[in-house]
Amino acid sequence: MEDLESLWNRLVAHERQTSLLTSIVSILSWDERTGLPPRGAEWRAEQLAYLAGQVHQRRTSTELGDLLERLRESELAADPHSDRGATIARLKHDYDKERKLPQRLVEELSRAEVLGQQAWVEARAARDFARFRPSLETNLRLRREQADATGYESNRYDALLDSYEPGETTENVRRALSDLRAALLPLLARVRDSGVPQDDSILHGDFPVDAQRRIGRRAAEAIGFDFERGRLDETDHPFCTEAGPHDHRILTRYDAGGFAQAFYGTLHEAGHGIYEQGLRSAFYGLPPGAFVSLGLHESQSRLWENLVGRSRSFWEFLYGEVRQAFPAALGAIGLDSFWRAVNVVRPSLIRVEADELTYNLHIIARFELEEALVRGDLPVDELPAAWNAKYAEYLGIVPPHDGVGVLQDVHWSAALFGYFPTYALGNLYAGHWFEAAQRDLGDLDAMFRVGDFVPLRRWLNEHLHRHGRCYLPPELLQRVCGQSLSSRPLIAYLNAKLDRLLDRS
Amino acid sequence: MEDLESLWNRLVAHERQTSLLTSIVSILSWDERTGLPPRGAEWRAEQLAYLAGQVHQRRTSTELGDLLERLRESELAADPHSDRGATIARLKHDYDKERKLPQRLVEELSRAEVLGQQAWVEARAARDFARFRPSLETNLRLRREQADATGYESNRYDALLDSYEPGETTENVRRALSDLRAALLPLLARVRDSGVPQDDSILHGDFPVDAQRRIGRRAAEAIGFDFERGRLDETDHPFCTEAGPHDHRILTRYDAGGFAQAFYGTLHEAGHGIYEQGLRSAFYGLPPGAFVSLGLHESQSRLWENLVGRSRSFWEFLYGEVRQAFPAALGAIGLDSFWRAVNVVRPSLIRVEADELTYNLHIIARFELEEALVRGDLPVDELPAAWNAKYAEYLGIVPPHDGVGVLQDVHWSAALFGYFPTYALGNLYAGHWFEAAQRDLGDLDAMFRVGDFVPLRRWLNEHLHRHGRCYLPPELLQRVCGQSLSSRPLIAYLNAKLDRLLDRS
Repeated sequence: MEDLESLWNRLVAHERQTSLLTSIVSILSWDERTGLPPRGAEWRAEQLAYLAGQVHQRRTSTELGDLLERLRESELAADPHSDRGATIARLKHDYDKERKLPQRLVEELSRAEVLGQQAWVEARAARDFARFRPSLETNLRLRREQADATGYESNRYDALLDSYEPGETTENVRRALSDLRAALLPLLARVRDSGVPQDDSILHGDFPVDAQRRIGRRAAEAIGFDFERGRLDETDHPFCTEAGPHDHRILTRYDAGGFAQAFYGTLHEAGHGIYEQGLRSAFYGLPPGAFVSLGLHESQSRLWENLVGRSRSFWEFLYGEVRQAFPAALGAIGLDSFWRAVNVVRPSLIRVEADELTYNLHIIARFELEEALVRGDLPVDELPAAWNAKYAEYLGIVPPHDGVGVLQDVHWSAALFGYFPTYALGNLYAGHWFEAAQRDLGDLDAMFRVGDFVPLRRWLNEHLHRHGRCYLPPELLQRVCGQSLSSRPLIAYLNAKLDRLLDRS
Repeated sequence: MEDLESLWNRLVAHERQTSLLTSIVSILSWDERTGLPPRGAEWRAEQLAYLAGQVHQRRTSTELGDLLERLRESELAADPHSDRGATIARLKHDYDKERKLPQRLVEELSRAEVLGQQAWVEARAARDFARFRPSLETNLRLRREQADATGYESNRYDALLDSYEPGETTENVRRALSDLRAALLPLLARVRDSGVPQDDSILHGDFPVDAQRRIGRRAAEAIGFDFERGRLDETDHPFCTEAGPHDHRILTRYDAGGFAQAFYGTLHEAGHGIYEQGLRSAFYGLPPGAFVSLGLHESQSRLWENLVGRSRSFWEFLYGEVRQAFPAALGAIGLDSFWRAVNVVRPSLIRVEADELTYNLHIIARFELEEALVRGDLPVDELPAAWNAKYAEYLGIVPPHDGVGVLQDVHWSAALFGYFPTYALGNLYAGHWFEAAQRDLGDLDAMFRVGDFVPLRRWLNEHLHRHGRCYLPPELLQRVCGQSLSSRPLIAYLNAKLDRLLDRS
């Protein structure tokens, strides 16, 4: 009889080797998005398909299944929050789910994602939803099949959500986002009724890209992104990826005519990167060294981007350098005007350009729509009208065409249903973490003012990052804050900020 | 009994899948040299070791051996220069060689390369050969073992040469390079005795890197490097790599204080890239779609770099743009002065900075030394003195210390013995190809003068590239020129150029 230690070591070796492959996939994907020669795409697809096949084989191998079966009844699995217990529990969960997917469905989904994105690009360019509808119907059908294969209790959407926000339920998300919407609408009215002009025109002007690169790197470094273990590059659609325990890559996009997009894109991705760099590298490739959910990931990026990066104290620290870097655009602009400009609240059509407050309304609309699509209550051909109705109701504006409406995001074309709500969950979690950190650390503003972000980063590291997947997000929230998910902290933070922003005295 | 067509298809599928892996290795290595975060190196080594293991398994698999054994007696193997015949013959050659290498030796060599390079970096920085000597001894011992394992007829060095210049023999190389040396020394004397100053100081000055990037790309594009199937990046040690049938990457290094290094580095690597892009992509991963030898590869890079890129007609085409791009450094410099500056002949210590003529003497010295090392006629601890004696004899200068002498190149530290002579073979072959192209195409200078490099590139493609590994270099030379390797064409070309350069009338 093989002893437990030896079983455990075999499990670790198996997962480490799988993570060699997945980290190679990361590099190939990163490379694809940073300058693969146009005609290189076809071979790259073959490379990735080959690796995906290898990864799927490893993740569904009977050897892995046997190991997990033997370990999960052992004493190592006793505490599901211990490193070993969590490893066994999470891997068993993932294994069972992956084994339930028929190979045919995996392949159909992989093809549908590629074809869906092609159809979406064309439809968006033509501003013609009809061209995208067949793909969307296919994607929905396949994900429903997936949900049926892996199983769920009461709502098919639960099964999809589980891929991105494990342990979360549709009902919980619906409740949290309804509360959030109810609390946000009065805030939006407050801004509107105040009569304070929402004007960020000073952020558009002459912002040379070289200086933006320098300032973006400076800010990412200041908040704690480690360039010994990472890099910052350029791409069309910003993202963050990891390709090894000490290889974290953030990507952003520059526009010489505007400051905010690249700067906040960099802070946001650096926030993701700091989370990944805060995971325990000794557990790389295993659940204790892996991110726990997209919502928690997003809570890190949003916290640094918004709660830190749009605070007045942050700009007391950095604005001098920024003004010096862009003398033409900002030479005559004072700190207060600048800070107000990066905090403008104004309903807009495009999610990725939305402000900190209205961003959530974009997400809530998408969640409600996709949940209805998956449930079958909303027929696909009624989606554009339903989209426009939501925008009219929540944001008071209606897209002039589908290209800036229902076709604006890539997610549904890639069959990602259940992904959108994690963006808003991230904001809610960020509100909780920031409140708790303030409670534990005292005057964060005093630290930000002098560019000291170490205490906050250490706090996040200690309370969140180092746990990897050992606790699910609601469990972390209970441990750290003694609460369940609520919009209260985020709304309190937004209200306090509006008190200052709308004070014209 | 499986039919031949089905055996052939299995062989093709096996090799294509191996080439998926080797092309992934290429991307990981490219990435390692273009900005891998410093602390990412360790995981990258694990990824590469994993892939190397997979590749070695596939290349020595009994399945492959059986396929080759059954095919090589078949009618498909009848013509060794046909696509299928060459595939079977070359793969069988490679397979037998790879199978003869004990796994232990493969692993020891892999470790020795890494350790050797570390020791070399330290020794070079300290200008202390003694620190490198143990590694060099280990590397030599392991390569001798390798030669003994794979076998050879008369000279151990033959077995090493075969890895880089298949089908070539030490005796042939020795004869060719002795002739070349004998022919070069009078040319060098001719320059020295002419009294014409060899002054390239105008190539040092204010050369902004952005403009260098633009001009380098312009030149690479002009001679035919296809950016739809490739890219140009920056690195410390310029190179060219391929990562798929339509993914060719060249890398160069810029110095804002000088023009020649980056420009000729780019032309050189673009020449390598044009060769790879000229291979038949339908045979990617198989011998008919692979480069045949390092010497032939180098003949392509040297031909574009020197025979084209240092010609007067080339600069009649491009100098106007270059002068405009660098007004501070070149505004007052005429075409003739510029052309003379890029053709300065002057013995120097460092191979990679040597001119077109003396470069070969650097190579000949290295070949003679390493061949004596492998044969055992030169003890390792006598190498520095032997190096200095060669430099005194061939170039008339003696390195002030080993850092710019025997320690200047990475090759021996990476256990690459038999590699150096391919650089000089490349120059000899380039002389042959250029002479033959001129014979077939007529006045090449008239084409270059108007920036038309298409006929020359098509000629190279037709006569060399498209054959891949179907003909060995000496066979190609017979087919194309009806000759065997000789220094005559290269020397004739150099003499004709000196006639113009040394003409002060």
